Amino acid sequence: MYQADLISKTRKHISQSEESLNAQILIKAGFIEQVMAGVYAYLPLGYKVLKNIETIVREELSTISAQELLLPALHPKSMWEKTDRWETLDVLYRFTSHYTKTELALGSTHEEIITPLAQTFIQSYQDLPLAVYQIQTKFRDEKRAKSGILRGREFIMKDLYSFHSNSEDLDTYYDTVIQAYTRIYQRLGIGDITLKTYASGGSFSKYSHEFQTLSDIGEDTIFVCESCNIAVNQEIIEEQSICPECGNPHLIEKKSIEVGNIFKLQTKYSEAFDLRFTNEQGENPLVIMGCYGIGISRLMGTLVEIFAHDNSHMIWPKAVSPFNIHLIALNTDNSDVSQQAEKLYQKFKSQNISVLFDNRNERPGVKFAEADLIGIPQRIIISTKSLAQNAVEINGVITPLDSIK
Amino acid sequence: MYQADLISKTRKHISQSEESLNAQILIKAGFIEQVMAGVYAYLPLGYKVLKNIETIVREELSTISAQELLLPALHPKSMWEKTDRWETLDVLYRFTSHYTKTELALGSTHEEIITPLAQTFIQSYQDLPLAVYQIQTKFRDEKRAKSGILRGREFIMKDLYSFHSNSEDLDTYYDTVIQAYTRIYQRLGIGDITLKTYASGGSFSKYSHEFQTLSDIGEDTIFVCESCNIAVNQEIIEEQSICPECGNPHLIEKKSIEVGNIFKLQTKYSEAFDLRFTNEQGENPLVIMGCYGIGISRLMGTLVEIFAHDNSHMIWPKAVSPFNIHLIALNTDNSDVSQQAEKLYQKFKSQNISVLFDNRNERPGVKFAEADLIGIPQRIIISTKSLAQNAVEINGVITPLDSIK
Repeated sequence: MYQADLISKTRKHISQSEESLNAQILIKAGFIEQVMAGVYAYLPLGYKVLKNIETIVREELSTISAQELLLPALHPKSMWEKTDRWETLDVLYRFTSHYTKTELALGSTHEEIITPLAQTFIQSYQDLPLAVYQIQTKFRDEKRAKSGILRGREFIMKDLYSFHSNSEDLDTYYDTVIQAYTRIYQRLGIGDITLKTYASGGSFSKYSHEFQTLSDIGEDTIFVCESCNIAVNQEIIEEQSICPECGNPHLIEKKSIEVGNIFKLQTKYSEAFDLRFTNEQGENPLVIMGCYGIGISRLMGTLVEIFAHDNSHMIWPKAVSPFNIHLIALNTDNSDVSQQAEKLYQKFKSQNISVLFDNRNERPGVKFAEADLIGIPQRIIISTKSLAQNAVEINGVITPLDSIK
Repeated sequence: MYQADLISKTRKHISQSEESLNAQILIKAGFIEQVMAGVYAYLPLGYKVLKNIETIVREELSTISAQELLLPALHPKSMWEKTDRWETLDVLYRFTSHYTKTELALGSTHEEIITPLAQTFIQSYQDLPLAVYQIQTKFRDEKRAKSGILRGREFIMKDLYSFHSNSEDLDTYYDTVIQAYTRIYQRLGIGDITLKTYASGGSFSKYSHEFQTLSDIGEDTIFVCESCNIAVNQEIIEEQSICPECGNPHLIEKKSIEVGNIFKLQTKYSEAFDLRFTNEQGENPLVIMGCYGIGISRLMGTLVEIFAHDNSHMIWPKAVSPFNIHLIALNTDNSDVSQQAEKLYQKFKSQNISVLFDNRNERPGVKFAEADLIGIPQRIIISTKSLAQNAVEINGVITPLDSIK
């Protein structure tokens, strides 16, 4: 894509109302725009990053037999009454149709929808196990929205639900999801600083797990065991003050961002909706469930917080960069440069390598400042000077033109 | 995919509350499920069809320089007050945050969001023209929901907005969109029965256009000129009773489903938000706008209404079918059949041809009834009988196995 065709512009200054670093950087770079507090528009560059994150998540979930579907955002009150969450879930946006007077909620999670729906595909043990997920927009009536896309009032979630005939089968799948999540964070470049973290399991399980990415701006506090690189969250440390995996009592307090959570629901929701199956003995026990979340837009915000440089701009991990290559032609009034740059651009395009091509007639300083903000990790510069050596500069390294395949 | 892994099940009977043919067929086939009146979940098969429609729309819009972004569903009241639609747009879901007491709307359209947002990327005539679109979930507080996914309370729309420095430029782009839409409907298999239809242009343009697909169950009435295969809608016929393109007064009344609409907004919204640009003379005129909608989920419903057979099941157009091929093995207790079928399945998979493979141990009648409901247009049957001829049956035609490349 020619950079001249990019509709978004980079900016030097943004509104003071934006407190978070991730939103500041993304707005300055033209990736997102604030529509209201906690609600953002994803401009073409930001949308590409979101889609790249989604693709990685989809690829990894397809390896664990999860099937994609799409659940609605509008939920009837009746479903939320069944789980007693209509009155108690503070963050639920609730409202009434002015025509039908039906009371509705905007989904902040989907156990209330998927559990009764699952009854249409689960009758017998032969239908189990099964796992479904969606990547979908969710809503939370947040008291304060001050963390940019880390905690929005509207955000994009991947929520996965699994259904099993017994707890052992849930345990097995739960471990498979942990592995898939681990691969996702690795591919996003935050594998090393994202820790499996023990959290409270509620009334049905001993533990649930969060995936916490270490970051000084994180809202969460975790306690890290440096011998097994696993953490426990605040609730767990209060209960037992050791690492559950190795028993290590020397845990180090750190700040972190929750980038995923997984939970053995057991029969909490299947009981509320009487979701049962016929087992091999002809009995009708409750279905065992698990749920597994990843905030897609939060992950994008986390990447910005982690990969920000000098609190001013970002270098994207290759896997999610809006383009593979930023090709920058300087001295574009030199027709040799323009022609050679265009030739390179077409070559990359023909190889399905995505390129943002800056062949605008602008000063180098302007081009580099914008390129820094956009943050594509692979930068190729072609100029009168580089062409004199029959070369380009790839991330600062002079590279002969004919070595670019 | 093995059909045994398909989570959804086909059904013989569905709830009587579902009035529309499209929802009846899709629910019976396990493509969608009703969550409440006018609100549906898309199960894996239905989700695949939706995604296939979206891909076609994206491919065609990418040829007309439209860039994809994603706007939020939550809208602040202030934006809708600027256009005086907060009180007047009946179908707007409106509600109040219980924390912040902020009044919000759920987007049923996005002029109120995109117009102020466009100011961040439009400063001078050099930034124009530009076109952006999104494929996103929209909400309408409908009085009655009885048309299945043709008119839901929650639905998926593609909405495209274009911005221009003058009306002639808008006219040119508007025609380009008409061509892109025409290609979209052709690729979906409804090109021949989808007519460009003149509609009222409101206060700013003489005409707008709808794309209307002929169907007896359509909610709309149009008047078709059989000489130029163009139509006018009810409003226009009342005003002038001729076809605007050829002047033909012999128009034939037909029922139809609106599957797209395009509208020259001119300065209606740029005026409300004072969206201006600096022209070559240094003046600051208002930006000229156009908007262009296609209901993605409605298109899916339309395809069902059009391609339904015997009011009971559907044969999908190839372009959107959830799988390319339905491979059905009969007599699976014959190991020659199972092995040969599995070999074929792996062969197609290695060629990236998507296959639903029914190797279940079920009676042929059960398999065919389910296959009819699922509606994949290419069906390959392999059985003891076909293998005796070293052949398979492709859509009823005996075809030698070794001719399948």
